[in-house]
Amino acid sequence: MTIELYDTTLRDGTQGEHINLSVQDKLLIAERLDEFGVDYIEGGWPSSNPKDEEFFLKARKLNLRHARMAAFGSTARALDNIEGDPNLLGLIGSETPVITIFGKTWKAHSSKGLGLSDDENAELIYRSVQFLVAEGREVFFDAEHFFDGWKDNAAFAERMINAAVEAGASRIVLCDTNGGSMPHEVTEIVKRVREIVSVPVGIHAHNDSDMAVANSIEAVRAGATQVQGTMNGIGERCGNANLVSIIPNLMLKLDSEFSNVRDLKQLTSMSKFVYEILNLPPDSKAPFVGKSAFAHKGGIHVSAVMKESSLYEHIDPALVGNRQRVLVSELAGQSNIRYKAQELGIPLPDDNSLFRNLVNQIKKLEHQGYQFDGAEASFELILRRELGQFSPYFEVLESKVHIENGLDVRAVDQAVLKVAVGDEVEMTVSDGDGPVNALDKALRKALRGFYPEIRTIKLIDYKVRVLEEKQGTSAKVRVLIETSDGQTTWGTVGVSTNIIEASLQALKDSLNYYLFTNHSKATTAVPAEEAVRNS
Amino acid sequence: MTIELYDTTLRDGTQGEHINLSVQDKLLIAERLDEFGVDYIEGGWPSSNPKDEEFFLKARKLNLRHARMAAFGSTARALDNIEGDPNLLGLIGSETPVITIFGKTWKAHSSKGLGLSDDENAELIYRSVQFLVAEGREVFFDAEHFFDGWKDNAAFAERMINAAVEAGASRIVLCDTNGGSMPHEVTEIVKRVREIVSVPVGIHAHNDSDMAVANSIEAVRAGATQVQGTMNGIGERCGNANLVSIIPNLMLKLDSEFSNVRDLKQLTSMSKFVYEILNLPPDSKAPFVGKSAFAHKGGIHVSAVMKESSLYEHIDPALVGNRQRVLVSELAGQSNIRYKAQELGIPLPDDNSLFRNLVNQIKKLEHQGYQFDGAEASFELILRRELGQFSPYFEVLESKVHIENGLDVRAVDQAVLKVAVGDEVEMTVSDGDGPVNALDKALRKALRGFYPEIRTIKLIDYKVRVLEEKQGTSAKVRVLIETSDGQTTWGTVGVSTNIIEASLQALKDSLNYYLFTNHSKATTAVPAEEAVRNS
Repeated sequence: MTIELYDTTLRDGTQGEHINLSVQDKLLIAERLDEFGVDYIEGGWPSSNPKDEEFFLKARKLNLRHARMAAFGSTARALDNIEGDPNLLGLIGSETPVITIFGKTWKAHSSKGLGLSDDENAELIYRSVQFLVAEGREVFFDAEHFFDGWKDNAAFAERMINAAVEAGASRIVLCDTNGGSMPHEVTEIVKRVREIVSVPVGIHAHNDSDMAVANSIEAVRAGATQVQGTMNGIGERCGNANLVSIIPNLMLKLDSEFSNVRDLKQLTSMSKFVYEILNLPPDSKAPFVGKSAFAHKGGIHVSAVMKESSLYEHIDPALVGNRQRVLVSELAGQSNIRYKAQELGIPLPDDNSLFRNLVNQIKKLEHQGYQFDGAEASFELILRRELGQFSPYFEVLESKVHIENGLDVRAVDQAVLKVAVGDEVEMTVSDGDGPVNALDKALRKALRGFYPEIRTIKLIDYKVRVLEEKQGTSAKVRVLIETSDGQTTWGTVGVSTNIIEASLQALKDSLNYYLFTNHSKATTAVPAEEAVRNS
Repeated sequence: MTIELYDTTLRDGTQGEHINLSVQDKLLIAERLDEFGVDYIEGGWPSSNPKDEEFFLKARKLNLRHARMAAFGSTARALDNIEGDPNLLGLIGSETPVITIFGKTWKAHSSKGLGLSDDENAELIYRSVQFLVAEGREVFFDAEHFFDGWKDNAAFAERMINAAVEAGASRIVLCDTNGGSMPHEVTEIVKRVREIVSVPVGIHAHNDSDMAVANSIEAVRAGATQVQGTMNGIGERCGNANLVSIIPNLMLKLDSEFSNVRDLKQLTSMSKFVYEILNLPPDSKAPFVGKSAFAHKGGIHVSAVMKESSLYEHIDPALVGNRQRVLVSELAGQSNIRYKAQELGIPLPDDNSLFRNLVNQIKKLEHQGYQFDGAEASFELILRRELGQFSPYFEVLESKVHIENGLDVRAVDQAVLKVAVGDEVEMTVSDGDGPVNALDKALRKALRGFYPEIRTIKLIDYKVRVLEEKQGTSAKVRVLIETSDGQTTWGTVGVSTNIIEASLQALKDSLNYYLFTNHSKATTAVPAEEAVRNS
């Protein structure tokens, strides 16, 4: 069965708390959704805010490969002014091939909320849909509060969706607007609706009962052929149905097909991309795409996973572009360290005392608040130092930071560093945007004479987590830094009660890691035979 | 139908990434679970680590009202040494009334993983259960990988659970260990198992397909009477089935009953309590208990919610101890500000220009990165300042922070402040654990002569979020501070590219808010009549 994917990240998704997207952000997401193979992209509600109008104007210039753009809005407000209704005119003005309008299908909303008789509500739906269809648009009808409405008064709900179908709507989308329905109710009601209406039926679920994904899947099993949802399940309250979970479940578990999804392996990177644009931390526990989704912790368990993954993983993580991880943690046994070293491509000698030392060192650092799953470069430096393969490229002998601020005072953020490289000592001073930036600049200034290649690297992420938050301002903080040289990225960590000191630790690891990998590459000579072949 | 609640937060939950619980933490959670009305508390795997053994030793002294403690472990390792098996002896040594052991019910795990014939595996299960039953314990049998095992070879799976029942197990718990099953598969298989075994059946689901809650609910509808899960769905990979979602769904949607849950209103505070002990930020989107679960953002929507909540909320939030919120955000209309003011008990005059100013001011600050949903005290100060009800109790004229560190250098964290209170100017200096702590101490020192009451307040939470993380070390940071006077707590916010400056803003708001509420109370005279009545 071929299922249509209708994404509303850009409209319903933006109703979520902490969600803010600029027009440029929305255009970037739209392109990515198209690339992945979404069939419909709901871009916004043009009459509700000027940003959405600007989006539709610019979206016309996007070179979309498959996806059709949809604008969202409500039925007209009053029967005596359908053709002049600002909302409907806004939808037409958006110039999208598809228009999705919602209407009331729960009697209480129509009578109490809008003060309409049943006849009036049905006519409002009929004439609104008809007006848009006459303008040459494809119209999807979103049956708002459909499941609650059906349970309350099925005859009313049925009459309203029939009005939409008769007026020419090409899809009836059943909305669990309040998110309170259970899967068995969805199954039963979708089956009934399929018997009533001749056009394809869609499902639009919310996650207030933790059921949005299950309700969407059950609706498909009951005959729905369009699924609406958002990337990463963003949306109002508890969020919309999460397409990132629904898509692999449909493809891998239910053998559904999509017309345009070519490469399911893009799922994890698309999910990350959307989190990045949203400037939200990814949910590490997210099914299929989360960083922890295929991460194994227990010691016994890990050796079994290394033997045969399929016994401990419901799907091959590569199918969705994710990967297996073994967590180096308090629960770690030697097999975890071995696995991690293997993953990093570092051969380990069969020396048991070495393992014991490493496990103990990791345990001690983690007890102090270090964490290596976002900072594998710091972990690798520890491992290589223990193996005698790495020693630091520089030492920071002294750091001084000075900050001034006030009502009539010019702000000062200044860092002074004394850095040793081999036998030479270099002192530098720098201003910055805040103390950590000043330190960063002073450190690069001190090192660039010795290692000019550090000009090419750039900090791309900087995170601070307060540990033991109950300690208030005297709590320890953990700083995670991510750095890029344009080709690869690596993460490093620092921990201290002083955020400046923790940041400096992570900065030092970041530079050392880059210098280490760069110098290793430079000194690995290409074998003569291969050099000839490649020339 | 009465359903048993079996909580494994303290055992399976601790397999999750970033989850670490001390023995003391585990005891606190166990007490809270009992208080809430959980029937069984799985405390740990005694043979797997010494911490769990210590937990069971101390748990005996807990004065639990309803809950029965369970220890978890595997069947014996070898048939020739059941009575001497260290794992089984560890379970017996834990002295819990209930013991839960898992055994292989997926043929591949038994034959490939353990190298056992079918006969040997069945005998291992039978004799392990029998041995524990003979010791006078109630034994629950966890059928590991049951659903995958059944789909692969139902006869094998059936034989293994029958062996457990014949040996005296009082529950057969069907585990979806890899979390890959779909609800309709769970329904079908649970129904079949109910026909086979005479003892009550339980469900233990994992969330790898985003289906753990749905699978648990569907299992109950198919006849399972025990649900296993964890608080907040913590656990390995994507987590275990989330009891915090399952409990209200069962009670409010399916009319199930629990023997000991007296007050569902404790659900939200229990969820928060567990997050706090875990030192993890609560999931604001969590169904039922999340901070956003009943939060409304869209302007039109909000006025409708204020008219009649039930039309926009699937349950009354008070039923689970949560509350409705209106988000003051970029999408906010005047109705949102009105709602918020009403919530804070601040009467607003009917002055439209005042609203416009407020909305514009909030928009501007949010654009700069401020966020008020964790910082309502800062929001209230803005509102009251606009209404002419508040002016700051002090001004920080100058701040200087000095930090030194290095290999052979004594660490220095020093803050100097010049603070004005009315016409008086006070200069103070203080050391601290890190620069923010030094500032905090210096500010209190400057103010305590004027406002001695600030001695009683304490910072209880301090969070840092890096905004625009891509800016690296020059990114803006948002600091959220929570303060308590022992009775109530309040949150304040600061934003700057300089973390020290952002922290100082939040500290200033925190102290001003306390002084404002304290002074308002002091100057609100008790009406004479009421004073007499209360005397």
